[in-house]
Amino acid sequence: MTVLAGVNSKVLKNGDAAPAPPSPGTFRIYNMRFCPWAQRALIYAAVKQIPSEVINIHLKEKPEWYFSKHYKGQVPALEHDEGKKHVIESAVIPEYLDDLFPETRILPTDPYEKVQQKLLLDRLSAVAPAFYGAAQAANNPEIRDEKFAEVVKAFENAEKLLTAEFYSGTSKPGFVDYLIFPNIQRAFWLSHILKDFPLSSTSFPGPNYPKLTKWYKSLESLPEVAAASQSTEAGVGFFNDYLKGTPNYDYGL
Amino acid sequence: MTVLAGVNSKVLKNGDAAPAPPSPGTFRIYNMRFCPWAQRALIYAAVKQIPSEVINIHLKEKPEWYFSKHYKGQVPALEHDEGKKHVIESAVIPEYLDDLFPETRILPTDPYEKVQQKLLLDRLSAVAPAFYGAAQAANNPEIRDEKFAEVVKAFENAEKLLTAEFYSGTSKPGFVDYLIFPNIQRAFWLSHILKDFPLSSTSFPGPNYPKLTKWYKSLESLPEVAAASQSTEAGVGFFNDYLKGTPNYDYGL
Repeated sequence: MTVLAGVNSKVLKNGDAAPAPPSPGTFRIYNMRFCPWAQRALIYAAVKQIPSEVINIHLKEKPEWYFSKHYKGQVPALEHDEGKKHVIESAVIPEYLDDLFPETRILPTDPYEKVQQKLLLDRLSAVAPAFYGAAQAANNPEIRDEKFAEVVKAFENAEKLLTAEFYSGTSKPGFVDYLIFPNIQRAFWLSHILKDFPLSSTSFPGPNYPKLTKWYKSLESLPEVAAASQSTEAGVGFFNDYLKGTPNYDYGL
Repeated sequence: MTVLAGVNSKVLKNGDAAPAPPSPGTFRIYNMRFCPWAQRALIYAAVKQIPSEVINIHLKEKPEWYFSKHYKGQVPALEHDEGKKHVIESAVIPEYLDDLFPETRILPTDPYEKVQQKLLLDRLSAVAPAFYGAAQAANNPEIRDEKFAEVVKAFENAEKLLTAEFYSGTSKPGFVDYLIFPNIQRAFWLSHILKDFPLSSTSFPGPNYPKLTKWYKSLESLPEVAAASQSTEAGVGFFNDYLKGTPNYDYGL
């Protein structure tokens, strides 16, 4: 799948020249290879087969020009219409792409079904702070038990809310599946790093979460998800450095 | 304007019986009269002329049955289809109402214009934590200067982002105007309470914010906004008690 060009390009950083605007009809996604939020945009572009150029940004030494793409300098940012249009925020870009390309719509068209998908994503979002809390606990044993308990709580909730094969409520992955996957994948990487982490690294997240374990296996093997994902080896390597405070945004390149 | 029935009904609290489901074709909004988030739903229903029954909830002694309407027990919650459909979250309900009733759509139909409204609301949202920080400072003089400075910063930002008569970018109020107004109105109430508050209570928010001062005056005089608002006297009275830790949810009734 080559719909995403440049996923593994090296980061641009402070001092690097700004790229030329995207050419007519093409989309650009500003990304960082290990960022779960930016990955949402990549997955959505891959599922919808929107040819996109990916530009990776150094998040500690940001290029000055990048603030004209995203006022806070975060990723993701979507740029198109020859650089005249910018859309930011990881939960907003996918819906925008669905509005722009309704023929490959992933969100339901029925207003109630659509809004339930958005609210379900919100309910699952506790996975992200639980992950960052656990990552933080790696360097602070005093808060470890409490932070690990929050991971368990977030995953128990995610297991409970998975009432069908996918969070779409059907046997086909949808908006919530694609958007929550990157956050859950980060917990998978962490399970390889932290000692006594409460989730299994071999059959992730493990026997206490039978539906979610099956779900995770299905999701990671989808070609559109694989195209937008880094390998487990790279992810684990990146996070090992990240936890030490020395992230290498070009890890593995 | 009687499109909102029961705005000034007394709160239901723990021990009170659950109301019967809304009758076919009618909408119900669970509310608290001084809650800025719930007010977003009321304003939207008023603008779109959706006849709605308003039920007020005691937020400290919540009825047990209310958790079946909103899993966290917060307001607002929208209920319809004879109690079979529930939608929560103050920024989500308005868009849902636009999707349900496109003939009175407030959000733009153009995908890019629509997404810009949602992102603009996000950029303005610093007004809310600034307000709560300042309210907190009322009882803690040590943090006062810092919290008041955050209010100034949030309002300077709001002034800068107001590039037309309204945040819609036109001479007609839109999604962002209606959704941000309640938060700004809370700061107006606070300006009557806190000594040395950096915003003016007489020509709110004051001479440093000429566009926003004109905007606030326009917004508060709109019939749909007035229908969904409490009087300044009631708002100020409620917040006086709220800051003391003893909110009276039926204040003024």
